[in-house]
Amino acid sequence: MNAHEKGYFTEENSVEVVTGRNANASSERLKQVMEVITRKLHEAVKELEPTQDEWMEAIQFLTRTGHMCNEWRQEFILLSDVLGVSMLVDAINHRKPSGASESTVLGPFHVADAPELPMGANICLDRKGEDMVIGGRILDTEGRPIADAVIDVWQANDEGFYDVQQKGIQPDFNLRGVFRTGEDGRYWFRAVKPKFYPIPDDGPVGQLLGSLGRHPYRPAHLHYIIRADGYETLTTHIFDPHDPYIHSDTVFGVKESLLAEFELTNDAVRARQYGFEDRFWEVRHDFVLARVGQLRS
Amino acid sequence: MNAHEKGYFTEENSVEVVTGRNANASSERLKQVMEVITRKLHEAVKELEPTQDEWMEAIQFLTRTGHMCNEWRQEFILLSDVLGVSMLVDAINHRKPSGASESTVLGPFHVADAPELPMGANICLDRKGEDMVIGGRILDTEGRPIADAVIDVWQANDEGFYDVQQKGIQPDFNLRGVFRTGEDGRYWFRAVKPKFYPIPDDGPVGQLLGSLGRHPYRPAHLHYIIRADGYETLTTHIFDPHDPYIHSDTVFGVKESLLAEFELTNDAVRARQYGFEDRFWEVRHDFVLARVGQLRS
Repeated sequence: MNAHEKGYFTEENSVEVVTGRNANASSERLKQVMEVITRKLHEAVKELEPTQDEWMEAIQFLTRTGHMCNEWRQEFILLSDVLGVSMLVDAINHRKPSGASESTVLGPFHVADAPELPMGANICLDRKGEDMVIGGRILDTEGRPIADAVIDVWQANDEGFYDVQQKGIQPDFNLRGVFRTGEDGRYWFRAVKPKFYPIPDDGPVGQLLGSLGRHPYRPAHLHYIIRADGYETLTTHIFDPHDPYIHSDTVFGVKESLLAEFELTNDAVRARQYGFEDRFWEVRHDFVLARVGQLRS
Repeated sequence: MNAHEKGYFTEENSVEVVTGRNANASSERLKQVMEVITRKLHEAVKELEPTQDEWMEAIQFLTRTGHMCNEWRQEFILLSDVLGVSMLVDAINHRKPSGASESTVLGPFHVADAPELPMGANICLDRKGEDMVIGGRILDTEGRPIADAVIDVWQANDEGFYDVQQKGIQPDFNLRGVFRTGEDGRYWFRAVKPKFYPIPDDGPVGQLLGSLGRHPYRPAHLHYIIRADGYETLTTHIFDPHDPYIHSDTVFGVKESLLAEFELTNDAVRARQYGFEDRFWEVRHDFVLARVGQLRS
């Protein structure tokens, strides 16, 4: 037997020796996952030739990242986000037929039990910020309205915080609501203009961004999950194209098709109809759902 | 501007968009490290096409691994070990000139302040296990003895535990010692025959090994760090080639050149000279140090 036949590890055969141990893995998928991860890890090590100190820095970075995670903070998801991994997984799982609205990352601030509200409700409970009215239609890929579509919307306030980040400061369920379309597929509600905000950057991921010369900001956006029987659920955002961070979202969530126009309207009559003071922002955006089975693989 | 010029993320340009943000990184090395890690991560995701649930499993595995780490337990090092990453980093950093002894992983059980002992001392303080005498020479690559070489040795007991894993059960500094060569470069000391043992497998890495159908054992070995002025420090093991796990070390630490013969000797006279009962194990092994600057890059 030579060294290879005995299964001894060398720089040359490192991947085969390690993955060769997985013959009795509990599933073929796990075996495949570990084969690819091991191969790519070893490729990275061979390309970078890290010193022992650099290897230890990587171990300590991962350890600090793990220690930062608790019930309210998921630092490994932030790491996945800022490395574009979350968006890549989202893209791979949501290849859309032509014309359907594109998806983007869910983010950590969705809550499951936001209240269902009548169409037109104002989801801004503390009235802080610049008034906004937003509406449009939920359509299928042939442009037909979808009835009984459920629109779950949430956003940060004009200081860049979600209610769950400011418990006791913002009212519970501030800037969250669930709406249901009628036969015409139309939706509308009132809110405030969202603002850019930083992802939580007081941990190892924030330090990494700092070392990379990267800012921690996401451009202003509203989050949506839109569900309808017979259609693929759409998890997405709409973005303000005039936001200073629109070309540098730290989690890479922006797509061309998710840009919506936020128009400033000076119309005292309409403002009063909406219960606003005078000026307000107006956004129109249609969402197009793919039928179940219509996604490309 | 098209989507690419605007810097929006797509499946196709994912690596370029993410690494393109690192223009102002604090060092060229960090920029290079993040370029390679991002590229290999994205390659792995594109090859595996994980579902959102699989991605979340990976996040949760890393989180559990981080939460397992404390002052006494480094689960990310174990993960690096069982994926062959630790051995690969060791191999890359210790390419030896022909004839020099090969290195292997340090492991987590070295302690810095083991006592310096007179040559021939018995490092087994509780006399539990099968007696062993072990000796040889510290040489340069031309076969000349190295004087004043410092040999730091440590091993598990015959139940597979290091003293630091059994505080209060084993005496402090059991099976540890530091020896210094004279002009002849010779060393010898007494100990007990080591035994195979499992790496700590009650955490996420142990669960992963289980799912992969892999055992958690390391074959029996002694650890060495050998230092001498003007020579590269050698961190290595010697292994018992007859160990049941010699071809399947769970951390891939075995190399052909690190196999030493453990011979059982029945010689009552010599046994008495060593202070042993009757039978004992005898090991001879020379170590060859590379001069500083003699390592291959």
